[in-house]
Amino acid sequence: MFLDIEKHNETGITIDNCKVGDSVTVSGMIHNVRVTKWGGFIVLRKSRGLLQAVVSNDTSRFFDEQGQEIHMNDLCREMAITIVGTVGEAKIKDPAAFYNTIEIAVAEVRVLSRPTTADVVDMNALKFGDEETLLRYKFDNRQVTLRNPRDMAILKVQSTIAKAFADFLTENGFTQIYTPKIVSEGAEGGANVFRMDYFGKQVYLAQSPQFYKQIGVGVYERVFEIAPAYRAEKHATSRHLNEYISLDVEMGFIKGQEDVMLLEAALLRHIIATVAERCGHELNLLGATMPKLPNEVPAWKLSEVHEILFENKLCEADHRGEDDLAPEEERAICKYALEKYGSDFVFVTHFPSEHRAFYAMDDPEDPTLTLSFDLLMRGLEITSGGQRIHKEADYREKMLRRGMNPDAFRFYLDTFRNGMPPHGGFAIGLERITACFLGINNVKECSMFPRDINRVAP
Amino acid sequence: MFLDIEKHNETGITIDNCKVGDSVTVSGMIHNVRVTKWGGFIVLRKSRGLLQAVVSNDTSRFFDEQGQEIHMNDLCREMAITIVGTVGEAKIKDPAAFYNTIEIAVAEVRVLSRPTTADVVDMNALKFGDEETLLRYKFDNRQVTLRNPRDMAILKVQSTIAKAFADFLTENGFTQIYTPKIVSEGAEGGANVFRMDYFGKQVYLAQSPQFYKQIGVGVYERVFEIAPAYRAEKHATSRHLNEYISLDVEMGFIKGQEDVMLLEAALLRHIIATVAERCGHELNLLGATMPKLPNEVPAWKLSEVHEILFENKLCEADHRGEDDLAPEEERAICKYALEKYGSDFVFVTHFPSEHRAFYAMDDPEDPTLTLSFDLLMRGLEITSGGQRIHKEADYREKMLRRGMNPDAFRFYLDTFRNGMPPHGGFAIGLERITACFLGINNVKECSMFPRDINRVAP
Repeated sequence: MFLDIEKHNETGITIDNCKVGDSVTVSGMIHNVRVTKWGGFIVLRKSRGLLQAVVSNDTSRFFDEQGQEIHMNDLCREMAITIVGTVGEAKIKDPAAFYNTIEIAVAEVRVLSRPTTADVVDMNALKFGDEETLLRYKFDNRQVTLRNPRDMAILKVQSTIAKAFADFLTENGFTQIYTPKIVSEGAEGGANVFRMDYFGKQVYLAQSPQFYKQIGVGVYERVFEIAPAYRAEKHATSRHLNEYISLDVEMGFIKGQEDVMLLEAALLRHIIATVAERCGHELNLLGATMPKLPNEVPAWKLSEVHEILFENKLCEADHRGEDDLAPEEERAICKYALEKYGSDFVFVTHFPSEHRAFYAMDDPEDPTLTLSFDLLMRGLEITSGGQRIHKEADYREKMLRRGMNPDAFRFYLDTFRNGMPPHGGFAIGLERITACFLGINNVKECSMFPRDINRVAP
Repeated sequence: MFLDIEKHNETGITIDNCKVGDSVTVSGMIHNVRVTKWGGFIVLRKSRGLLQAVVSNDTSRFFDEQGQEIHMNDLCREMAITIVGTVGEAKIKDPAAFYNTIEIAVAEVRVLSRPTTADVVDMNALKFGDEETLLRYKFDNRQVTLRNPRDMAILKVQSTIAKAFADFLTENGFTQIYTPKIVSEGAEGGANVFRMDYFGKQVYLAQSPQFYKQIGVGVYERVFEIAPAYRAEKHATSRHLNEYISLDVEMGFIKGQEDVMLLEAALLRHIIATVAERCGHELNLLGATMPKLPNEVPAWKLSEVHEILFENKLCEADHRGEDDLAPEEERAICKYALEKYGSDFVFVTHFPSEHRAFYAMDDPEDPTLTLSFDLLMRGLEITSGGQRIHKEADYREKMLRRGMNPDAFRFYLDTFRNGMPPHGGFAIGLERITACFLGINNVKECSMFPRDINRVAP
């Protein structure tokens, strides 16, 4: 036998390029079916959303998997079917439907397969007394509840964000890398690492690709990665995931952390424009509006943020002199930046050295501070980043000062020993930025199969 | 402070868009430096490869990190530098250089940072008595040896393959998904799973996203994933990695496994064309030629392959009646397909059911066989795929027949219980297909940081 690729590539009329009056064949899952006196409606679920098909008792016919004629009454939700019909203009433009300008006049329905339970999860009736019960039910049955158009829309936006991230960086000379998640040393320190036995050795699941993306800068100047990262957080909050997708960037030959911040701002602008362009339906469905990112993005030092909020009386407490941002400050400074400068984003820089990772470069003008930043969006931190140390001696000195053993980081330090350009980077949590864009409170809703302290299935 | 994004986006002349006579500023690592009587050469390493710069004693000047003037003699390998100079035509078109039509007449070199050892790894001198010693040295010091142009080229091709894979599938209506790698059940069975403690529960690192990508078909019709996969293989061969990147595809609403094979052939054709177009330099450097994929790709049943090889006397042994392909058959049938049909690829189908995963659909015409395939390329298997079972009852029946406990697969079976379209898919090992394209014997050379039984660092 020979497979003819060219033949496969012949394309005819599809549901995505058809016009009114065309004959069309379209497959999907039955999302809903409503029988009326004169016929009825089939709501077909496709990958982007819903399509309405209109059945007429006079002209529509139905066939089962064996080609036997059946009745419309025999159809049920979550059957996989193929509809043959004619494209017409939609009588009612249902905003919940992806295909909301057209509908299909059904000539023929062919059943391809069917559920084996009469008690199929009703994607439209996921309503419970309280949100927590609803969420638990949805997560417990995610293999099926993901078929709910709202969840489909969330993960479609997530996928679009990741693609736009990769496309922008590739266009700008970055190389995508794939680094190991089984590692012999944790990059971020602390106790929240997952341990594992690896043929008799104790190893860890990578908390971040930090060491490897820095190494990548010595090779490719500019690198990025999209991959899982692991944090053994023991608390189950709406803001944490134990396994998440980290969008990681690292670039060499920078003049300072501003280069990194400018790159991130330009990247985010591209992502926002791409999501707005390609996910209009999803944004509508979720009632989301894309954040504002003006040409000039506010970037303030931590001490300046404290000062601005105090002077303008925007916080309950006086936070001046504190070494981190209080949650009320995160919200207040974002509100201030939006009202005054039309920006949903605020960079906050110069965090104290003792609160940042050891690889952060200290500010030569005040070594108690670092050339590092957080990016806040709508009151939440979505990124940490900054310039990194690039000299071996500076690493050794800082490690010793922190009571770390440089010998445990042999290959990492060897990178700098062999020469490294000035560099910096940042990481964005994919689930978190998706939640922030879409105004979703629980970050777990932005993970296809969330993992937390209580959940490792489905 | 405000970051001006637009200003950042102003682009001037760069090394990638300059023409002869232009003034240009270009940064990179010193790959090599050669002093002559009249000046000398600096070979600069950029992300895509090498660029030659010509120094003149009369006009070129050199400055250290503090802006103090230095001599060309003070330069050394693996310094990060910025060169300001004028673009000229290359005197010698060195095929090893990426920028091999131009060279830079150096006006000024500014040192940005430098190695802290005089004994920098020489990227050009990675030569040892035997290949095994060389490979061990390279892997032991991969944080630095990756800067070798040959290894840079391999991983650049790898990155291009993955991007082409994602682009083609996105264009064809597939949604990229991100599924968990910490799982409560192994999808592929067998003993080669990594176990881990997860807050008191025993969990596994995913051997494949099989269950999750099938679930994804119930949601998005067509899905793909690019993510790590884990196999606790105890043998250290040149063909196995314990952590590898799996390119996974799953599509719904198929008529049979031919749809899946045709998709894979069209996808591979796109990948091959993209690598040929974008990685000409890397292919030259590695002496690689892209494989041939004609319009008509051979696809033979396992029993037919045995028969063809026997009838044409292409194997030492008579393999007719055997239930798998012998390695000599893999090589022989690929040679035959190339000589007779101009194809570096051969699909082999209808493997015995007992040798394939439980989710493979049995052939209704002969239930001892499956509607599944391997794709061979240049004598090696690079893919397994096929049509999957889509009915809950068929899963239960097959699981019981195999002594598996269906209750251990509750969420998986629940997917089919709630209705699933006919579907199928395949997986490609990214490192393996990269090695196959490039004619590299050891698949570990196609992993940035390979993991095997003996290696978990760097």
